[in-house]
Amino acid sequence: MPRPVGELAPPSRLLLGPGPSMVHPRVLRAMSIPLLGHLDPDFLGIMNEVQAQLRHVFRTTNVFTIALSGTGSAGMEASLVNLIEPGDTVIVGINGVFGGRMADVVERCGGIPIKIEAAWGKVFDPQQIEDALRHARGVKAVALVHAETSTGAHQPLEGLGALCHRYGALLVVDAVTSLAGVPLETDAWEIDACFSGTQKCLSCPPGLSPLTFSTRALEVVKTRKRKVQSWYLDLSLIADYWAEGKRAYHHTAPISMIYALREALRLVLEEGLEARFARHRRNSAALIAGLATFGCALQAKEGHGLPTLNCVTVPQNTDEALIRKSLLAEFDIEIGGGLGPLAGKVWRIGLMGESSRQEHVMALLSALEQIAGRHKGRKPAGDALTTALQSYASCA
Amino acid sequence: MPRPVGELAPPSRLLLGPGPSMVHPRVLRAMSIPLLGHLDPDFLGIMNEVQAQLRHVFRTTNVFTIALSGTGSAGMEASLVNLIEPGDTVIVGINGVFGGRMADVVERCGGIPIKIEAAWGKVFDPQQIEDALRHARGVKAVALVHAETSTGAHQPLEGLGALCHRYGALLVVDAVTSLAGVPLETDAWEIDACFSGTQKCLSCPPGLSPLTFSTRALEVVKTRKRKVQSWYLDLSLIADYWAEGKRAYHHTAPISMIYALREALRLVLEEGLEARFARHRRNSAALIAGLATFGCALQAKEGHGLPTLNCVTVPQNTDEALIRKSLLAEFDIEIGGGLGPLAGKVWRIGLMGESSRQEHVMALLSALEQIAGRHKGRKPAGDALTTALQSYASCA
Repeated sequence: MPRPVGELAPPSRLLLGPGPSMVHPRVLRAMSIPLLGHLDPDFLGIMNEVQAQLRHVFRTTNVFTIALSGTGSAGMEASLVNLIEPGDTVIVGINGVFGGRMADVVERCGGIPIKIEAAWGKVFDPQQIEDALRHARGVKAVALVHAETSTGAHQPLEGLGALCHRYGALLVVDAVTSLAGVPLETDAWEIDACFSGTQKCLSCPPGLSPLTFSTRALEVVKTRKRKVQSWYLDLSLIADYWAEGKRAYHHTAPISMIYALREALRLVLEEGLEARFARHRRNSAALIAGLATFGCALQAKEGHGLPTLNCVTVPQNTDEALIRKSLLAEFDIEIGGGLGPLAGKVWRIGLMGESSRQEHVMALLSALEQIAGRHKGRKPAGDALTTALQSYASCA
Repeated sequence: MPRPVGELAPPSRLLLGPGPSMVHPRVLRAMSIPLLGHLDPDFLGIMNEVQAQLRHVFRTTNVFTIALSGTGSAGMEASLVNLIEPGDTVIVGINGVFGGRMADVVERCGGIPIKIEAAWGKVFDPQQIEDALRHARGVKAVALVHAETSTGAHQPLEGLGALCHRYGALLVVDAVTSLAGVPLETDAWEIDACFSGTQKCLSCPPGLSPLTFSTRALEVVKTRKRKVQSWYLDLSLIADYWAEGKRAYHHTAPISMIYALREALRLVLEEGLEARFARHRRNSAALIAGLATFGCALQAKEGHGLPTLNCVTVPQNTDEALIRKSLLAEFDIEIGGGLGPLAGKVWRIGLMGESSRQEHVMALLSALEQIAGRHKGRKPAGDALTTALQSYASCA
């Protein structure tokens, strides 16, 4: 018999890391609603609603628009494993952790990743992608990260779908940290497979991966020579569960998570996408302005910083891990550290969905002011707060 | 802009199908607790607690005992995809849908399934398994379903691990519909890989797969010749996240689902496994006795019926689908229909976890009495209720 565990009573945190983000009380409440069965007609109606909501947020008319039963990484794997067959070549843009992960997944599918690289914090130029397409020939797909969570870089995608299609390739996009936080135009940008996660700008708990496939991508799935190597992520089977009129049992959908996602999407639609994007930009600008007073600079280059994931260099001569520990222990604020080559060099501050609020920006800057003041043995200067407030005032 | 969806207000159902089962209010409440980050020291502490709870329920000391971020089917795939390499032979017991699914997964891993079959509703004899092991030689693993959700058959497993090990094979067990509902002895029965789902006898919402691997199974994972084909389900990577002291980021754990599982496991431990098994047996016996008055017989043969999933033949000359529809629409009670060759021939009535309660048994029998009475144009006879009550009285 293990030591009995007590009632669950976690501390109350302000989540400003790379995800999960804060969850709205309405979404938390939705999860506490008693369950329907996964084949109950009322639940199937809820699935229809979630699909319509997701199409709106993805800006697509794709019939195949679903919430996959796994986290964003499952969405990444599902996107690739259904499209790639052994021997297929895939151009993968690597400018951070998640591009690298896609190349790994491509290899595990028996595909051949053609890695194009950019410095961490930089984005890819259309010319670089076209050169790779022309050079490699017969490329099956191009896989890019819209919002690189490890560097905060925001990849422009407009026109890239058409470019890929001119070379007969599909465009696969990781929108984990962008969906519902920055503009994403699945149809207008001709994206063929686009996956996201619920715990970022949708402000829903982690556990589902919103996913959409174009007709072109579905055609590739339908005409595969061999079965998808993953049964769990086989979209031809999953499609039969999500398709109205079919609803063939595949696996038991995570009912409560679907409830949560439905409510999170309702909140997104109530706010409106444009207003939501503007809010993300406003809070990010104020945060960046405030952080600049400590000497923090954006890791992303040439205006390609994400408002959802603010990756900044840490102030000089500071023990960044100690500051993060102090933020968590004393102020109940979570921010993220750097990954890979950026470990110890950057902070990753997520202002996604419910986390992107003025009071949260001010709370973080206040805490940093206090820590900095203590470090220097003087009263907090207040510069960061003033600068952030001025940034807000200039937006108003 | 899609038609705005209203507040989530699903009907209140009594879930007596093959899962999800009813969820205790304490578990629903746990899901509405605000989130910690997935690398927060407090969350890592919660993971430790869940691991200890799971070890208790699995009756194992396996270090690698986790909750996988997917449903039971993801647990099935993770178990097989990590152990099997191309060319490996796996004996798969097929006596229902889920054995067939395992054979499909083995093939998708490049393995060669050796299918041993039994009639739907029957179980496997150790001799049949030993014959297959002797005949095939060099078998990598034997995969069996402990509780076949499609037939309600309860496979005895005692001694089978030792048998497999004598032939150098691993024993992989699908315990989706058995864990915490009927005795399962991972260590004593020498099971090497055992997976389950949260939405059955644990009475937690669907979305996680409890999973445990023996040292022997982990050794096979460690000495693989090639990478696991699934990145998302690669247990060598996932192990580094769950390992105390390591906690390397792999993917974002479904925080709220882990909260729910922790609370569901607390309820299991408070009740005690033996008392819980007895409760499942008691309610199943009463249900079966009551259903017999309608002419329903167990599909599982020779005393191998599961108390958690009662698969019974439908009464003669009835439109079984119409009765299920009526149960749902008029009485808000969900039961399951048959799958595959049993479609239209059986009902699958789950009495798992919170669903396994006397009041639920009586509610279902009452509804069936009313429907039967109406069908025959007479008052409900009450025989089913009386018989069920007598069954309860004989247990007391």
